[in-house]
Amino acid sequence: MYGWRGRIGMMLPYDNAVIEPEFARTLPPGVSAHVVRTTKTDRIELAEESLLLAPTMKHLRANIALYACNASSFLQGRAWHDAFLERFQAAAGVPTESANSAMIKLLIHRNVKRIAVVSPYPKWLLEPLAKFITDSGFEVANIIGLGLEPPDINALGPEHSYRYAKEADVAGADGVLIVATNFRTLEVLGFLEQELRKPVVSSNQALMWMAHRMLSVPQGPIEWGGNQFAWPMVERS
Amino acid sequence: MYGWRGRIGMMLPYDNAVIEPEFARTLPPGVSAHVVRTTKTDRIELAEESLLLAPTMKHLRANIALYACNASSFLQGRAWHDAFLERFQAAAGVPTESANSAMIKLLIHRNVKRIAVVSPYPKWLLEPLAKFITDSGFEVANIIGLGLEPPDINALGPEHSYRYAKEADVAGADGVLIVATNFRTLEVLGFLEQELRKPVVSSNQALMWMAHRMLSVPQGPIEWGGNQFAWPMVERS
Amino acid sequence: MYGWRGRIGMMLPYDNAVIEPEFARTLPPGVSAHVVRTTKTDRIELAEESLLLAPTMKHLRANIALYACNASSFLQGRAWHDAFLERFQAAAGVPTESANSAMIKLLIHRNVKRIAVVSPYPKWLLEPLAKFITDSGFEVANIIGLGLEPPDINALGPEHSYRYAKEADVAGADGVLIVATNFRTLEVLGFLEQELRKPVVSSNQALMWMAHRMLSVPQGPIEWGGNQFAWPMVERS
Amino acid sequence: MYGWRGRIGMMLPYDNAVIEPEFARTLPPGVSAHVVRTTKTDRIELAEESLLLAPTMKHLRANIALYACNASSFLQGRAWHDAFLERFQAAAGVPTESANSAMIKLLIHRNVKRIAVVSPYPKWLLEPLAKFITDSGFEVANIIGLGLEPPDINALGPEHSYRYAKEADVAGADGVLIVATNFRTLEVLGFLEQELRKPVVSSNQALMWMAHRMLSVPQGPIEWGGNQFAWPMVERS
Amino acid sequence: MYGWRGRIGMMLPYDNAVIEPEFARTLPPGVSAHVVRTTKTDRIELAEESLLLAPTMKHLRANIALYACNASSFLQGRAWHDAFLERFQAAAGVPTESANSAMIKLLIHRNVKRIAVVSPYPKWLLEPLAKFITDSGFEVANIIGLGLEPPDINALGPEHSYRYAKEADVAGADGVLIVATNFRTLEVLGFLEQELRKPVVSSNQALMWMAHRMLSVPQGPIEWGGNQFAWPMVERS
Amino acid sequence: MYGWRGRIGMMLPYDNAVIEPEFARTLPPGVSAHVVRTTKTDRIELAEESLLLAPTMKHLRANIALYACNASSFLQGRAWHDAFLERFQAAAGVPTESANSAMIKLLIHRNVKRIAVVSPYPKWLLEPLAKFITDSGFEVANIIGLGLEPPDINALGPEHSYRYAKEADVAGADGVLIVATNFRTLEVLGFLEQELRKPVVSSNQALMWMAHRMLSVPQGPIEWGGNQFAWPMVERS
Amino acid sequence: MYGWRGRIGMMLPYDNAVIEPEFARTLPPGVSAHVVRTTKTDRIELAEESLLLAPTMKHLRANIALYACNASSFLQGRAWHDAFLERFQAAAGVPTESANSAMIKLLIHRNVKRIAVVSPYPKWLLEPLAKFITDSGFEVANIIGLGLEPPDINALGPEHSYRYAKEADVAGADGVLIVATNFRTLEVLGFLEQELRKPVVSSNQALMWMAHRMLSVPQGPIEWGGNQFAWPMVERS
Amino acid sequence: MYGWRGRIGMMLPYDNAVIEPEFARTLPPGVSAHVVRTTKTDRIELAEESLLLAPTMKHLRANIALYACNASSFLQGRAWHDAFLERFQAAAGVPTESANSAMIKLLIHRNVKRIAVVSPYPKWLLEPLAKFITDSGFEVANIIGLGLEPPDINALGPEHSYRYAKEADVAGADGVLIVATNFRTLEVLGFLEQELRKPVVSSNQALMWMAHRMLSVPQGPIEWGGNQFAWPMVERS
Repeated sequence: MYGWRGRIGMMLPYDNAVIEPEFARTLPPGVSAHVVRTTKTDRIELAEESLLLAPTMKHLRANIALYACNASSFLQGRAWHDAFLERFQAAAGVPTESANSAMIKLLIHRNVKRIAVVSPYPKWLLEPLAKFITDSGFEVANIIGLGLEPPDINALGPEHSYRYAKEADVAGADGVLIVATNFRTLEVLGFLEQELRKPVVSSNQALMWMAHRMLSVPQGPIEWGGNQFAWPMVERS
Repeated sequence: MYGWRGRIGMMLPYDNAVIEPEFARTLPPGVSAHVVRTTKTDRIELAEESLLLAPTMKHLRANIALYACNASSFLQGRAWHDAFLERFQAAAGVPTESANSAMIKLLIHRNVKRIAVVSPYPKWLLEPLAKFITDSGFEVANIIGLGLEPPDINALGPEHSYRYAKEADVAGADGVLIVATNFRTLEVLGFLEQELRKPVVSSNQALMWMAHRMLSVPQGPIEWGGNQFAWPMVERS
Repeated sequence: MYGWRGRIGMMLPYDNAVIEPEFARTLPPGVSAHVVRTTKTDRIELAEESLLLAPTMKHLRANIALYACNASSFLQGRAWHDAFLERFQAAAGVPTESANSAMIKLLIHRNVKRIAVVSPYPKWLLEPLAKFITDSGFEVANIIGLGLEPPDINALGPEHSYRYAKEADVAGADGVLIVATNFRTLEVLGFLEQELRKPVVSSNQALMWMAHRMLSVPQGPIEWGGNQFAWPMVERS
Repeated sequence: MYGWRGRIGMMLPYDNAVIEPEFARTLPPGVSAHVVRTTKTDRIELAEESLLLAPTMKHLRANIALYACNASSFLQGRAWHDAFLERFQAAAGVPTESANSAMIKLLIHRNVKRIAVVSPYPKWLLEPLAKFITDSGFEVANIIGLGLEPPDINALGPEHSYRYAKEADVAGADGVLIVATNFRTLEVLGFLEQELRKPVVSSNQALMWMAHRMLSVPQGPIEWGGNQFAWPMVERS
Repeated sequence: MYGWRGRIGMMLPYDNAVIEPEFARTLPPGVSAHVVRTTKTDRIELAEESLLLAPTMKHLRANIALYACNASSFLQGRAWHDAFLERFQAAAGVPTESANSAMIKLLIHRNVKRIAVVSPYPKWLLEPLAKFITDSGFEVANIIGLGLEPPDINALGPEHSYRYAKEADVAGADGVLIVATNFRTLEVLGFLEQELRKPVVSSNQALMWMAHRMLSVPQGPIEWGGNQFAWPMVERS
Repeated sequence: MYGWRGRIGMMLPYDNAVIEPEFARTLPPGVSAHVVRTTKTDRIELAEESLLLAPTMKHLRANIALYACNASSFLQGRAWHDAFLERFQAAAGVPTESANSAMIKLLIHRNVKRIAVVSPYPKWLLEPLAKFITDSGFEVANIIGLGLEPPDINALGPEHSYRYAKEADVAGADGVLIVATNFRTLEVLGFLEQELRKPVVSSNQALMWMAHRMLSVPQGPIEWGGNQFAWPMVERS
Repeated sequence: MYGWRGRIGMMLPYDNAVIEPEFARTLPPGVSAHVVRTTKTDRIELAEESLLLAPTMKHLRANIALYACNASSFLQGRAWHDAFLERFQAAAGVPTESANSAMIKLLIHRNVKRIAVVSPYPKWLLEPLAKFITDSGFEVANIIGLGLEPPDINALGPEHSYRYAKEADVAGADGVLIVATNFRTLEVLGFLEQELRKPVVSSNQALMWMAHRMLSVPQGPIEWGGNQFAWPMVERS
Repeated sequence: MYGWRGRIGMMLPYDNAVIEPEFARTLPPGVSAHVVRTTKTDRIELAEESLLLAPTMKHLRANIALYACNASSFLQGRAWHDAFLERFQAAAGVPTESANSAMIKLLIHRNVKRIAVVSPYPKWLLEPLAKFITDSGFEVANIIGLGLEPPDINALGPEHSYRYAKEADVAGADGVLIVATNFRTLEVLGFLEQELRKPVVSSNQALMWMAHRMLSVPQGPIEWGGNQFAWPMVERS
């Protein structure tokens, strides 16, 4: 049976073409990932639609659910996000986390305080993003955006997140955060940590880490494109 | 970019936990697969809901779409299926095939005429299935069902499709067909063809074959559990 | 010569289809395993018949013998078991242990005191099993059974022992014990220990550990289905 | 489930320490082998005892049974052997062949007529062996024996069957036969065929070939000690 | 000694960052490649400067020299190119070919007549390119350009040459030509030939083929990113 | 994009046939190396010519430049070298080091004080070499030369640097230095350090170490001809 | 037992440091090679001394003996060689061939008539070598020597036999012969045959071919330094 | 050049068929081994003959020489051995050790005092062997012999040295010594040390260890037949 150790249900936004191949390559043995996808392209509508689709998580016998979209859930602020996550979990009927909650928890886990943030999003999304991070208890040392819309972000190779993460990094930052679930980072996280000598966290890495933690299923490091890709130590929740 | 040679959009029924791992393992280099999932558990409603979700295929820049469910589209007969497929393709905005159309085309491609059919479905679905096959121009030499509902089919290992395919096979059949997209068969198709010495076709194999053909992307054989899993020669459509 | 470092003779009950493939995969280099099998299907008769078959252990130049059946030897209690093991060893003419004695010794070796027990057996066997464990000096924190008869247990994949071991585990237990020599566990013991963070012992693992110990032949860990399968440190007896 | 494509039941004589490791290494995927062992050391008694043990073949859900002893069944002549095999099959309740019947059928399959025979047995067994072969329709071009008793044969490495097969070969022979199920040959059959340029058949190779044929399960060649070990083309029975 | 079977000297334009890694990966054993690089950024001046640098080819004991730039040598027409190549060879003192002469000879070798051409160059270079090809005896079925300047071409991944080659291909063409030595194509040539079912030739592939031919050193196919990259049959010049 | 983590520009003397294959094999993932080559064969002219060629480093978007020639820059003394390196860096427009500066910095990094020096150069170059090393703050414990001219040095296998390094080593030396960028050493550095039990530094190893350091790109050890080739710990500059 | 399929005894001249590593790498499974070595450095004395040492071949139970020196046995002419070989075989007591007889037989086997000969020997040995070849029934199309004495030949890498074989080859030759058992050729024979498109035979290759033939032990091709090294089809003698 | 790090010359007795394959498999990279062989079968004569053959060690440019025979040099006592070794070294002209001196030095290195000795030799050789060991400063806790002559010892597989080493071991021994250079032990030394938990030293292991030490060439452990074969830490002499 696929997913005999655990099934992950993932709610994806309409355009995301990155998470499925990335999870397929990094799933622990006996764990499977399954997708539900919204059809709305407007970020506010998309979040609401996901609540209607959420019950299928239970139908497919997922053990946990991940709301795998950043922008649609940080856009309306931290308080809105927290209430939304509760509504989503109620609808899905299984324990749920979001890309945003996973990324916040992983930053805390790695003891990062002042963050250099990079995101492929258009400029107007940077302010709500910075506010979400600040409201979650961190300082934003620097923030840069690439000014792109979702379907174009999907086309970028990981050398772009590498380059912009190095650009975003500043002396005062004690960690780097790369935000967006359709932005490839797995091939370069290991390189970045080696070169910048500080924790580097990305949305999809945080989602994987969160899923392993929710399922109590540890996962060892993976070789990806010459880059050793590892999860920080997973403790039992 | 994931899917730089081609992106496959797949419409999956609420329960299917088999197609995603199977496609993840067998995709040609440069091809990616992405899922949209219905929420309805009733087969008739499920088909209708899929038409509402179909436009997201275009949003995620899929090059082709697959309607990856058998029962919901053979249930109402061959004519209904053909009209439904046209409606789906119009909504998706990209070339589309269904699990049923793929399986029929692969049977023709392999020159099978009299078919031994095996399916995990409950008994009452066998008659419409047999009728769909007959109306598509084949003879049904034998048909057997396992009497299971979808979520339980997902839990069966491939040794079950192996055993029932051998049980279904009869002397007069010149091919075996295993129907259901949530029934694992890839690990045993090679063994079955070696042992039964006739073509053995399954729903997910037919969907993969169809996808390669629609994208003009040939794919070589794959080793799976000691079993050489190959696609019959793919000609350009 | 097969078995130039040591030959293991194994007395198997009529139905067991699991031990031979499992030992074949895990034997240390230079060690071989050879089977003698009872024909009786009644557990009481089976134990007696094994005494008649035991002398062939010496004929095939086995260095040690294992009585590889749990139920037939715990059924009549700890005292009966101990006397039976002495009778068996006398008949076999070489040092002998049983599945039950091996499992008890391994639990002591790993310092487990309060045990969560899982077994595929029918309910009526759980009481004598619990009593055997208690009479051997442990507490039973929890015990669950699957209610199956031998030939059906042979057909279960290791995902079943995985699932029921997690179900059986309770907060107060400091170890998990999976009982039955025809119940597959080797593919999941490593996962279970990682996830539950306590020792997990199974009948066949205990038999292998016992055999290595009796022959003074240490064996390193083995990769099995993505799961690192290791023996706890083997000290010289 | 071990043996999901087929389970082989094997009746072994008391001393045999060779067949289990050899089958373990050469079984096709999904096929398992399970042993029942006689306790008698006298060849005539051994054959009779095997009839009493045979019913356990059915209990362990074997699909076929092999009587894996040459001497005890050729000793009393071809006619006795044929009647014995019928009795054994009736007792076992599943299709059965013997080491002798397998070896005869493989010789026919490979079109051998005049045979050079080598066997580790004591001299007095060579005459009944030659007679059995002649009565089965072949000519014996040459026959040599090593004069050993069973438990010592088990200790010989395959370089001995290699050396004696070359010694036994004579110009007039169109094939070589190596007889005894406790005599290792698999590591050298490929070398011998390359060097002697004629078919070389051994007891255990014939048993494996027979099992594949009875189960309709073809098996590809295996690399063993630098020697390509292959089965002659297996046709469906 | 590096290059004991042959040393290739390559004259590269100032910006080229693609040829060195590509040759490093595809050189036959015992063959080495060494670079001389022009400093001029103007294409006309670059060609003239290369004549001054050419004598170092002999100093470094290169066995052959390659003028590895397309635009600077097709810009002034076929007749100019041929005279330039003679001047270059005289200065280098070893047998010499250019990217253009290699590409023309490979097209002839593969029997292509009507060509679909794709190039990353700016539009104004397409006309001289088409004229060079026509003056060399071919028909241009279609030609498309990406409108890029050299340093930006170096940054493109091979998925771009893949996409534009498919776009450039037209029904009437019997082959596809991808022109520019700083445009990556090796990872996709095998895919393109499988999918388009006609010869696909690129500048760097032609240079490698030419070098193997000039040195009489055949080279087998290479696996590159899942794509089998092969040279058309190399005959002795 | 080749060199997405960093591009190394290398200024090579006319004859060097060693650096390109050596860098090709040892570059970290995502780093590329590109060559500019002088044409002068006179060492003094060669240095001056390199200043004219240097600007192309910037044109090809190199991130750093290496002046990869020892003799031409130690010949005129330490002071001249330092001034020359400044002139070169100004012309190249990117951070620059030379073979000599890299080798000096690596000797300091490894804490070597009294050096045994071996070089393939003609005798008359040994004195300026020794003086350059002494003027850089080290003692020369011993110095030996092979008396060869550049194009012949390129033809020597690494067993020569191995043999002469052992010959040059003396009891009072606390490190060995092998000088010349066209002298192969990578296959033997690991062996030499194991056998001599002191640091052994070579020109090309120092250049690689310097490049990793300038780009802040750590590189793990490499297996080369049975010899583990490693860089001493690279700290961030 | 080492050499259970066959033991090769080899008589080596005092200096030869090449044959032992080359045979060690290319021996078929189950075949071993063992050395006896002369102490004389004079070629005439060396041949005579070998007759005194020959009986040890039988003592070490070699199945065949090879006189693995060319010059000492062609020096005194074809007739002397043939008589010497008979004397040697009589003394050794097992079937014997020499480097010269093996090389002549392999040339005949490959149907070469006009030979380009290369040898590392001093000039004065070329005439007797050419005469030996002519007296054996071939034409010598060209012959070149390197003018070296034995201990220096042992130090040459295979790139030297490669280079001189290409130099020796002339249009009229239909094969190339490389003579000397201390001259490395195995790494380049495959390259040379591919490039020159005619048979290329060397002393040690001929000795290996001869040994396989004498023992009736076929051997497949071997990968050596990127070069496929194969023996021409070995037929049974 | 074979042996560019060091060449080992080995003086072998007439029958030895074990050392050559064993050294071939375990030589460090860049080290080669070359054989000189005595022809005498009498042990006393053999030692004397070896002095006449010794000068060829220097002719073949060996860096060290090993007298690789135990019995012929312990037979006449420790004092005779020491004088003989000096005579041998003088004749060979390079540093020399014997199988006996290597074995004694390795026992000291591993700090063994009371030794259990096993040897395949005939009984009458055990007394001089024990005396040699005692005279070298050890106690002999136990000594057993197999009673075999040289050519038969060569035919024994390593399972024999395994079995007899376990048999020879006694409680009071703090190490085991296996004596004879034609007795295979490398496949079992690792197993024996793991099982007996004390140092186990054999003649050929000691010779290898001695050679590494004399050449200052460390060698890592080797996997051999499932058994990790390692040399005890080699310190510089």
